[in-house]
Amino acid sequence: MAGESFSELLKGYANPVELLRNSKSGIYVYPVVAPEFSNWRSEQEAWRHTAVLFDQTHHMDELIVEGPDAEAFLAYVGINAFGNFDLNRAKHFVPVTPAGDVIGDMIIFREREDKFVLVGRQPTANWTKFQAAIGKWKVRLTHDPRSDSRPDGERILRQHYRFQIQGPDANKIFEKINGGPVPDVPFFHVDWINVGSKKVQALRHGMAGAPGLEIWGPYSDKAYILSVILEAAKDTGVDLRRVGARAYSTNTLESGWIPSPLPGIYTGDGMMEEYRDWLGADAYEAVGSIGGSFVTDDISKYYVNPFELGYGFYIGWKKDDFIGKDALTKLKGAPTNRKKVTFEWNREDVMKVIASGFEEGLPYKWIDFPQPNYASSSADMILQGDKMVGMSMFNGYSYNERSMLSLGVVNADVKIGDVLTLKWGEPDDTQKTSTEKHRQADIRVRIAPTPYAKEARENYADSWRTKS
Amino acid sequence: MAGESFSELLKGYANPVELLRNSKSGIYVYPVVAPEFSNWRSEQEAWRHTAVLFDQTHHMDELIVEGPDAEAFLAYVGINAFGNFDLNRAKHFVPVTPAGDVIGDMIIFREREDKFVLVGRQPTANWTKFQAAIGKWKVRLTHDPRSDSRPDGERILRQHYRFQIQGPDANKIFEKINGGPVPDVPFFHVDWINVGSKKVQALRHGMAGAPGLEIWGPYSDKAYILSVILEAAKDTGVDLRRVGARAYSTNTLESGWIPSPLPGIYTGDGMMEEYRDWLGADAYEAVGSIGGSFVTDDISKYYVNPFELGYGFYIGWKKDDFIGKDALTKLKGAPTNRKKVTFEWNREDVMKVIASGFEEGLPYKWIDFPQPNYASSSADMILQGDKMVGMSMFNGYSYNERSMLSLGVVNADVKIGDVLTLKWGEPDDTQKTSTEKHRQADIRVRIAPTPYAKEARENYADSWRTKS
Repeated sequence: MAGESFSELLKGYANPVELLRNSKSGIYVYPVVAPEFSNWRSEQEAWRHTAVLFDQTHHMDELIVEGPDAEAFLAYVGINAFGNFDLNRAKHFVPVTPAGDVIGDMIIFREREDKFVLVGRQPTANWTKFQAAIGKWKVRLTHDPRSDSRPDGERILRQHYRFQIQGPDANKIFEKINGGPVPDVPFFHVDWINVGSKKVQALRHGMAGAPGLEIWGPYSDKAYILSVILEAAKDTGVDLRRVGARAYSTNTLESGWIPSPLPGIYTGDGMMEEYRDWLGADAYEAVGSIGGSFVTDDISKYYVNPFELGYGFYIGWKKDDFIGKDALTKLKGAPTNRKKVTFEWNREDVMKVIASGFEEGLPYKWIDFPQPNYASSSADMILQGDKMVGMSMFNGYSYNERSMLSLGVVNADVKIGDVLTLKWGEPDDTQKTSTEKHRQADIRVRIAPTPYAKEARENYADSWRTKS
Repeated sequence: MAGESFSELLKGYANPVELLRNSKSGIYVYPVVAPEFSNWRSEQEAWRHTAVLFDQTHHMDELIVEGPDAEAFLAYVGINAFGNFDLNRAKHFVPVTPAGDVIGDMIIFREREDKFVLVGRQPTANWTKFQAAIGKWKVRLTHDPRSDSRPDGERILRQHYRFQIQGPDANKIFEKINGGPVPDVPFFHVDWINVGSKKVQALRHGMAGAPGLEIWGPYSDKAYILSVILEAAKDTGVDLRRVGARAYSTNTLESGWIPSPLPGIYTGDGMMEEYRDWLGADAYEAVGSIGGSFVTDDISKYYVNPFELGYGFYIGWKKDDFIGKDALTKLKGAPTNRKKVTFEWNREDVMKVIASGFEEGLPYKWIDFPQPNYASSSADMILQGDKMVGMSMFNGYSYNERSMLSLGVVNADVKIGDVLTLKWGEPDDTQKTSTEKHRQADIRVRIAPTPYAKEARENYADSWRTKS
């Protein structure tokens, strides 16, 4: 139904959980990029041991915010301090609701004094557009949604290409494509480098827990830039692996970013109600899915606040106002705040689940390698005895760690090293097409720090991924 | 190097095995089609229990052969009897070398008295083109190679779309799209049906072991045809599952066709030598790969003859001549001929291999689900004690059978029910990018009939898949 609002759509359901748990949108994929270039095990190994090329052109929305009020507007929408936001910096932009619940996150680049580019999942883009629509800011927004999940042979066009090169050998490639040493830019700072005959912007980044650069430019340059990078790998003898869709999303397990918090937009009145009226029935928030063993009618139980994700230190307390400031002031240091951890899955229990796929009868929920997530937002119960003490929000297998890992939040009193239980699989049948029928399993999980990867902990002690 | 011949390329290698075992072309994929539409377990289940839609538009080469000599030419190139090849029939076209080794296979349709369409892997198309080039036949050939394996957002165009609808509920969809009962066509016969407002050709087929139809037409009609099919599924309430790239290739494990025999073109002089001079260094035969535990310098050890694949009954002995006739006459009934079987992998041994991915040290070769093949042609040793008595040529996991299965050939004296050993993984490191470093494992396999699926055995007793 063209033009239907999310509010209209919701009227057909007992509550938003019912809608999202029965979404038929399928697996939330990393689109367009080939599933594997070599094989996903070697691709994972390469970001730890040699170098990888991530093609991030397709899986994220891009939102351009420009105009005389751009900075003031974004400082109001996001929780982040903007005082130190120079032209050569990027930030991890996080907006929350007036209740202080995380809506999502995007990387934000400042391209000019009056122009910002935001890159990330759709909820933050939608919310930002809504704020521009209801406010009186002098801003112009341009939204380039992520590529089609199943293009089926049709051509895909985007505004920008976006590549990352990571790993211990990445620097050899940078020097080659730049024609000399690359500027020693601090983490999340931006500079310009040469890629063959082109000058491109480069962000110092490190998604897989090893230093690297993210570069971007007009989509029409993509083939040229790619060929320069591959040629440089050849010339330098670096075993650069292009990372396919299957391995890509698992890199976050080692570095500790949770890509998929459920946006806290389903509850609340006033501005929140207005937002749901404004939001289309085809938005991410409407077609996305909730998967996992944690089932509740109260959708707010799936939300997280910025302190829980380790984003507390972003908050620009000195700003006069920003959406959620009052709520966050109250939540700061609250004993109810959970903390972000890594769950290390017990291998025997994982094997028990896999083995059920070789036995008669209804198996446990299949653990698909390397990425078993079957919803755009996952919530698996973490139990201490019978008591729920956390939720697992993003899982995957790491060939580097030889382990199934997941990221999530636990109560403050849970300790590193504690062995708890992850309830794997859903208690009931839903309409989700992304999962086969299954029964539930108990999987022991050991609480580990985040980021899990030793390399990431050591190399990114200053980054947002490690603070809490 | 543009224009380099396969013979030239081969000069850089000790033997063709060395070239193919070190191919860097990556996994041989089912291209363009999304990896999963729902999830691969449910997609596999659907061909057994409801209905599936296979999109076969992209993974096969198409070769059109037309002209006054088309029939005589193809009868000379292939082993098949052509006497009963009416306009309403299709055949499983198999060419062999003068030595009687299988080159490949394609489905061949007769569109007019003087026009045939062949659909399948590239080796048969290449060989057929070569025969046209060196002979004096009045034929014109048009070759439409399969779609790019990793299109990376670029548009794909083909000559024809090609869909199959299979499964116990498929007939409800045919009746709906046809606007009434569909003609009761025998297996591998062709008729016309309506799909909405279009009249399309339909082949009675059954790749997944359940009755179905294959339909095709101009590529520009694809979106329309797809929408009519999906609408029909909705209207009839049939749970039709679109099958993605990950599940697709496993359907053959239940029905018993081996898609990937190594073409027997690497040896022989005379015509064979001329063929390798003619063949380009970018051909399937040159860039394809050999994977598996069976390693030999003598590439002919990987070949199979038509009797071994169960294609003996195709042979048109009454034809005056066809390539390989003399050799096949000698091979007929030879005690050295192996026979096609299904290998049912022992679940404990499979679990042992998987478990090694959760342990320190070098793991066994990863068994990737549902399709662990890591080469365009696979050859894993089948051992009875220390003696090699067969080879496994195509493997995969069947959620329907809750088992890893593979297809291959064994010596004549191996019996159904025998428990032998499959050597899993390669004895050495190669340059193949499709596999991680690994060690070898012994996996017990039980010899089972082909086709393995009970449904397929019962429903297709007359088809080429079940005869031997």
